[in-house]
Amino acid sequence: MLNIGIMGSTGYAGAELLRLLTAHPQVKIKFLGSHNYAGQEFSNIYQNFAGSFNDQICSGADLETMSKECDVVFLALPNGIALTEVNEGILSKAKIIDLSADFRLKDADVYEKWYNKQHKSKELLSNAVYGLCEINCEKIKCSRLIANPGCYATCSILALYPLLEAGIVNFKDIIIDAMSGVSGAGRAAELGSLFCEVNETTKAYKVISHRHTPEIKEQLSVAAGAKVSLIFTPHLVPMNRGILVTVYAKLTDKVTYEEVLDAYRARYAGEYFIRMTKKETFPETRWVKASNFCDIGFALDEDSGRIIIVAAIDNLVKGAAGQAVQNMNIMFELDEKMGLENVPVFPC
Amino acid sequence: MLNIGIMGSTGYAGAELLRLLTAHPQVKIKFLGSHNYAGQEFSNIYQNFAGSFNDQICSGADLETMSKECDVVFLALPNGIALTEVNEGILSKAKIIDLSADFRLKDADVYEKWYNKQHKSKELLSNAVYGLCEINCEKIKCSRLIANPGCYATCSILALYPLLEAGIVNFKDIIIDAMSGVSGAGRAAELGSLFCEVNETTKAYKVISHRHTPEIKEQLSVAAGAKVSLIFTPHLVPMNRGILVTVYAKLTDKVTYEEVLDAYRARYAGEYFIRMTKKETFPETRWVKASNFCDIGFALDEDSGRIIIVAAIDNLVKGAAGQAVQNMNIMFELDEKMGLENVPVFPC
Amino acid sequence: MLNIGIMGSTGYAGAELLRLLTAHPQVKIKFLGSHNYAGQEFSNIYQNFAGSFNDQICSGADLETMSKECDVVFLALPNGIALTEVNEGILSKAKIIDLSADFRLKDADVYEKWYNKQHKSKELLSNAVYGLCEINCEKIKCSRLIANPGCYATCSILALYPLLEAGIVNFKDIIIDAMSGVSGAGRAAELGSLFCEVNETTKAYKVISHRHTPEIKEQLSVAAGAKVSLIFTPHLVPMNRGILVTVYAKLTDKVTYEEVLDAYRARYAGEYFIRMTKKETFPETRWVKASNFCDIGFALDEDSGRIIIVAAIDNLVKGAAGQAVQNMNIMFELDEKMGLENVPVFPC
Amino acid sequence: MLNIGIMGSTGYAGAELLRLLTAHPQVKIKFLGSHNYAGQEFSNIYQNFAGSFNDQICSGADLETMSKECDVVFLALPNGIALTEVNEGILSKAKIIDLSADFRLKDADVYEKWYNKQHKSKELLSNAVYGLCEINCEKIKCSRLIANPGCYATCSILALYPLLEAGIVNFKDIIIDAMSGVSGAGRAAELGSLFCEVNETTKAYKVISHRHTPEIKEQLSVAAGAKVSLIFTPHLVPMNRGILVTVYAKLTDKVTYEEVLDAYRARYAGEYFIRMTKKETFPETRWVKASNFCDIGFALDEDSGRIIIVAAIDNLVKGAAGQAVQNMNIMFELDEKMGLENVPVFPC
Repeated sequence: MLNIGIMGSTGYAGAELLRLLTAHPQVKIKFLGSHNYAGQEFSNIYQNFAGSFNDQICSGADLETMSKECDVVFLALPNGIALTEVNEGILSKAKIIDLSADFRLKDADVYEKWYNKQHKSKELLSNAVYGLCEINCEKIKCSRLIANPGCYATCSILALYPLLEAGIVNFKDIIIDAMSGVSGAGRAAELGSLFCEVNETTKAYKVISHRHTPEIKEQLSVAAGAKVSLIFTPHLVPMNRGILVTVYAKLTDKVTYEEVLDAYRARYAGEYFIRMTKKETFPETRWVKASNFCDIGFALDEDSGRIIIVAAIDNLVKGAAGQAVQNMNIMFELDEKMGLENVPVFPC
Repeated sequence: MLNIGIMGSTGYAGAELLRLLTAHPQVKIKFLGSHNYAGQEFSNIYQNFAGSFNDQICSGADLETMSKECDVVFLALPNGIALTEVNEGILSKAKIIDLSADFRLKDADVYEKWYNKQHKSKELLSNAVYGLCEINCEKIKCSRLIANPGCYATCSILALYPLLEAGIVNFKDIIIDAMSGVSGAGRAAELGSLFCEVNETTKAYKVISHRHTPEIKEQLSVAAGAKVSLIFTPHLVPMNRGILVTVYAKLTDKVTYEEVLDAYRARYAGEYFIRMTKKETFPETRWVKASNFCDIGFALDEDSGRIIIVAAIDNLVKGAAGQAVQNMNIMFELDEKMGLENVPVFPC
Repeated sequence: MLNIGIMGSTGYAGAELLRLLTAHPQVKIKFLGSHNYAGQEFSNIYQNFAGSFNDQICSGADLETMSKECDVVFLALPNGIALTEVNEGILSKAKIIDLSADFRLKDADVYEKWYNKQHKSKELLSNAVYGLCEINCEKIKCSRLIANPGCYATCSILALYPLLEAGIVNFKDIIIDAMSGVSGAGRAAELGSLFCEVNETTKAYKVISHRHTPEIKEQLSVAAGAKVSLIFTPHLVPMNRGILVTVYAKLTDKVTYEEVLDAYRARYAGEYFIRMTKKETFPETRWVKASNFCDIGFALDEDSGRIIIVAAIDNLVKGAAGQAVQNMNIMFELDEKMGLENVPVFPC
Repeated sequence: MLNIGIMGSTGYAGAELLRLLTAHPQVKIKFLGSHNYAGQEFSNIYQNFAGSFNDQICSGADLETMSKECDVVFLALPNGIALTEVNEGILSKAKIIDLSADFRLKDADVYEKWYNKQHKSKELLSNAVYGLCEINCEKIKCSRLIANPGCYATCSILALYPLLEAGIVNFKDIIIDAMSGVSGAGRAAELGSLFCEVNETTKAYKVISHRHTPEIKEQLSVAAGAKVSLIFTPHLVPMNRGILVTVYAKLTDKVTYEEVLDAYRARYAGEYFIRMTKKETFPETRWVKASNFCDIGFALDEDSGRIIIVAAIDNLVKGAAGQAVQNMNIMFELDEKMGLENVPVFPC
C-alpha cells in the first residue's frame, strides 16, 4: 500500500487524480493538499466525491510535511512552484510526480525563455525523467522525480515518435494542428474560460507561441537524433475534455500503409494504452473519454508525399492525471494498467 | 461467474450495460445481441471498447437461444418486443431484466392505452417485479422477471416515495418538472435528435402525455396507499446525459427541515446509491455523471406550504443500465454495489 | 434622430443593445460607456463589431455628461449603481432606461430586503415605470425613467398576466419553473460561469430565494388585483441564450382551451412580439433566438384542474436589450417594432 | 422588386436564405419550394418564422414553373439535381443561383470522379460562374448561372487567393486544416449527425477525400496560374455554425508582416465582407456568426519559412445563403451589401 499526497488536489487535474486513485487498489490517500480550500471537506468542492469514498479534509500541509509521510507526492500546481519546492531533501524522502512544466525541459534556458521565469533548480533537471510512459519506461522505473508531460505534448509525441525514430518522416518539415477541450485551461476564473466566451465557437490561440512547442521539439529530437523543426498550432473547441492532433509530416521516402503501421506496432508492442485505429478509420476524442488510451490513425497522401496522422487522448487522463498514475505504477513496479483499465465512457 | 446475454446491446443503454459489466468481477458476457449489427465486431460500432476487453462479435441469437446458455438476459429493446418474446419457457431457463416499459405497469389496460399496443403477456405481469432497487429490494431478490424502471420514473419516485409513505406530502397535489439529456431519446436517427435541432435550445415535450406518467403514479400510489394525482412535464436539455427533477408537493402539515430529512434517512438507511445533499445545497447532474447515484435535496417554502425537492441521476446508469446491474446483483445475492462503485466523472 | 448613451456597454446586455441599435434607423450612438475599457476601441473587445459600424472608443463619461448630450441613456450596470446616479437633475435632461433592478420594485423595503442594499432614491420610485411593454405601454409613453424588467420576470409575467387579470387562474397557487441560458449570469469572470462548470449539466439554483421573485409577485398582483402567492425556481441550462418558463397554475373554474386562448388574444391584441403557439405545440427557445418575440403555449390538465403554460424568450433581447429598445421606441413615439423586426436565427 | 423562388427551402441553407431575404428590401418571395413539405405552412416547420413575415405555404412547383414567374431561382438542393433540371430554356427565363456542387467544377471529369455521378449538363459548365464574390465579381455581373461556392471552399480560397496571386506562397506546398460546425452536414436524419454522436467530441473526417478539395484546387490554380497542390483535412466540431480554417503555406521568399498584409489589402480593397484582424489577433467563429463576413489573420514563422493563416466564416451565411444573396445583389446591380449588413450576433 502506497501512501499518497497530492498538492493542488482541487484543480481539475488534481481532482481527476483523486478520482483515479480512489479506484486504485494499492494506494492510500494521506494528504489532499489545497491552498484555497484548506480545512474544507473535499466533497464540498467536488460533490461527485460525496459518499463514494472515505471523505477527507483538504490539507494546507507543505511538501516537506507530505514527503515525510508519503511514498509519492503528486504536484498538480501552477508552473513555477515545483521548481522552488522540490529539492534533494524532499527527494530523499518521497518520490515526486510533477504535473507542471517545471522539470520537463532539459535546457533551463529554454524554460526561462518560454515560461518567463528563472529556473532555480537547474541541478535537479538531470534527475528528472520526462514521464512519457510508452517512450521512457525504463528510465521511469528508477526515477525519483517525474516530469509528467503536457497534454498536447503527450498526444503529439506519441503520434510522431515511432516515425521519426524509424526515419520514415522528415524531421525538418512537421506541422501539428491540435484541438483541445476547455478543461485544459484549468479551473481559474478567467474571462476567456467563461461558458459564453467558449461555447459555440472555435479559435486558434497562441499561434507559434504555445509553451508545449519546445517540449514537443525536445522529445522528438531525441527520437530523430537531430534537432526537429515543427509548427504547433492549438485550437480551443467547445467541449469539456479531449485532445485531437492532426499531424502533417513529409515522408522521407515512399512507404506503404502497412510499413508505417509496422513501425508503430514495433515501437508500441505490448503497450496497452496505444490503440491503432483500423485503416481509413481515424481517432475521435469521444472514444477515449475518461480513459488513459491514446488512439492513433493515419493516411498517406501520395500527391504531396506526406503522411497525415490523427491522434486522440483525454487531456485530463492520458494528458495529465492518468499518465501520472501510470508513472507511479511503473516507479513502484505495479502493473502499469492498475486503476486505469476502464472502458472509455460514451456518450459522455 | 454469471453468464450474461444482452439483447439490443448496440443502443445507448445496451452499450452502457456492457461498459458496466466489463468492470464487474462476477460476470461473463456470452451474447452481445444486435438486430442491426449481427456479425460485426462490437468495437467497430462503439470504438471506445477497442482493446479494452475481449472483443466480441454481435450476435443475432434469439432470446430462446440466449436463455439456454445464460443465467440472466438483459433486454435493452424498444417497447413492445419483450412482451412477445418473454414467456414461461424462457423464464424457466434464465432470469430476465427488461429495460423496456413492457412489464412496468401492473394494469395492462393502462399499458395498452399509453403505449398504444396490445399486451399479449398479461399473465406474466404478476410475476414481474418493478426493479426500483431502493424500494423493492426484497421482491427483487426472489424475482425471475424484472421490469427495470424508466429513467424519469426512477428519479421522480425516489424523490417522493419516503415523503408519501410517511404522509408528509399530499398525494393529490404533486407537480414534477423534469429535464433530461438527449441520450434518453436513444440512438435512432430521427430529425428531433439531430445536433442542430437540440443544441442551444430547450423545450417542454409530451406535456401531460409522457408515458412515464402512469408508471410514476402507479408506484407512488403504493407509497401513499391511495391513488396519487400528479402532473409530470419533461424538458429536453442540450447535454448528453443526466436527469434532474424538480418536484413541488403540498405539505400535509407543518414540518421542519430536519423532520423531512429524517424521513428520507429512515427510508433510505444503508442505501449506498442515495445521497442527500447538504441543507441549501441541491443536486446537479454533473455530480452523478457516469455513476449509479441518485442525489436528493429539498427546501421548504412556508409561504405556500410546499416542499421543493430536487433529485438528479445519470439517465443511462441509475436510470437504465446501472440499475439493471444493481438488480442483477440483488437477484444473484452479490454485493449490491458490485461494479457500480466508481466516483462520478467530472468535468465530463 | 435620437442621441444615445449607453453606460455599461461592454457587458452582454450592453453589447446586445449596441447590436440592436446599430440596426435602428433613428438613433445615433454618442457614448459607449465602459468602466473597465474606457479608451479602448469597442471592437477590440467585441470583435463582431469590427468593420460593421462606425467604430467608437469606449468612454469613461459619467451619467451627468451623457445626459447633457443625449436624448436617452441606457444603464446596463450592476444593481445598486443606478439608484445612486439617477436624480431629478439627470431626468430633467435625458430619459433613462435602466436595465438593473434598482427601480423595478415599488416597495423600497422589498428592494432593501432582497438586494441587501439601502435604496437611496426612494423618491424616484413613483416616477419609474416598470417597462414591460405589452402591459404598461400607456405609462411608458409618458415616462422619464424606465425600469426595464428582469429576464425571468418578463417571461413569467407575460405568461400569466392575462389569465390572472381575467380571473382564470387562482392567484394563490402558482408555480413557475424556469430555465435560463448562461448569458443571464453576465460576463463577470466567476467560477460558477466557467465552461467546464456549466457545460453538460443542469441545476436548480437560488431555490425560493431568486431576486426576480418579488418582481414577478408585484407585477402579477397588479394583474390579479390581489396579493399573489407563487413559487419561482430557476434552473441553469448549458446554452448561451434563452429562457423557458413552465408555469403550473390552478384554474378557478372549468375552461376550454379556446376560452383561455381568447383571454390571451384579447389582452395581447395587436402585440407583434407575442406569438401564441398552435394547440399542442409549445415554445422552444430556439424559435425566438436573437429576436424580441415572446412565444406562449399552454395545455389544460383536467385531472388536476391546472393549466400548464410554457413561454420562451431570448434573455438578452426581450429579456434585456430588445425590450429596452422597445421601451425607447414607445417613449419617443416611434414604431414599437423599429430595429426589432428580424426573424429569429436558427440554428444558432 | 425581384421575384424570387427557392427550391429546397426547408433545408438549413434554404431556410437561412429565406431569413436573409425576409430582411432584404428589394425582393418578393414567390415560391418556397419543398419536396417533403409541399402544402404545409413554412412556419410549421421553422417556427422562428411565425408571425414575422407574410407566411407562405411550401410549394411543390418545379423549376420550369418557378422560372416563368421569377427573376431568380435559388437551388438549395442535394448534389446531382441541378444538373438535370437546369437547361437553356430555364436560363432564358430566370437567373439561377445553385448552392449545390453541380456547376462548381469546370472539369466535368473531375466532377464525375469526386461526386460519383454522370454530369449531364456539361454544355452549361462554360456558362456557369463560380460565385465567389470577392474574386469573380465582374463575371458574376453578367452571369445567368451561378455556382455558389462550398462553405469550406469559400473560407479556404479567400484565405489563400491574394497570396498565391501575388506569388508570396508556394503553390506546391499548402496544408488546409479546417473545422466546421454541424449544420454543414445538413438536416438529414442520419446517425452521424445525432446530438449524442457529435456533442463533446471532435474528429477528422473524409481525410484526403473531401469533395471540396478539387473545388479549392481549381480556384486556387487560377490564382497561382499553375496547378496547385494541397492537402485539405476537415474536422467536425460540436457547435451549430461556423467554419475555421488554419492554413500552412510555404513562403516563396522572405516577407514582412506588412508586405503580406498589403497583398491582402490590395486584393480586397473595398471589399466590405473581408475583415483583416489586427496583428497577433486571429479570427474566431463567434465574431462572424449569423453574418456574411470572412475574417482573416495570419502569422509568419521564420523558423520554418511558413505562413499560418486563420480564416473564419459562418458556414450558412458566407458559406451558403449569404453569399447566394450577395451574388444576387451583384447580378441585379443592387448594393452588394443589401440585406447583409447586420452585426454578427454574440454570444449566440
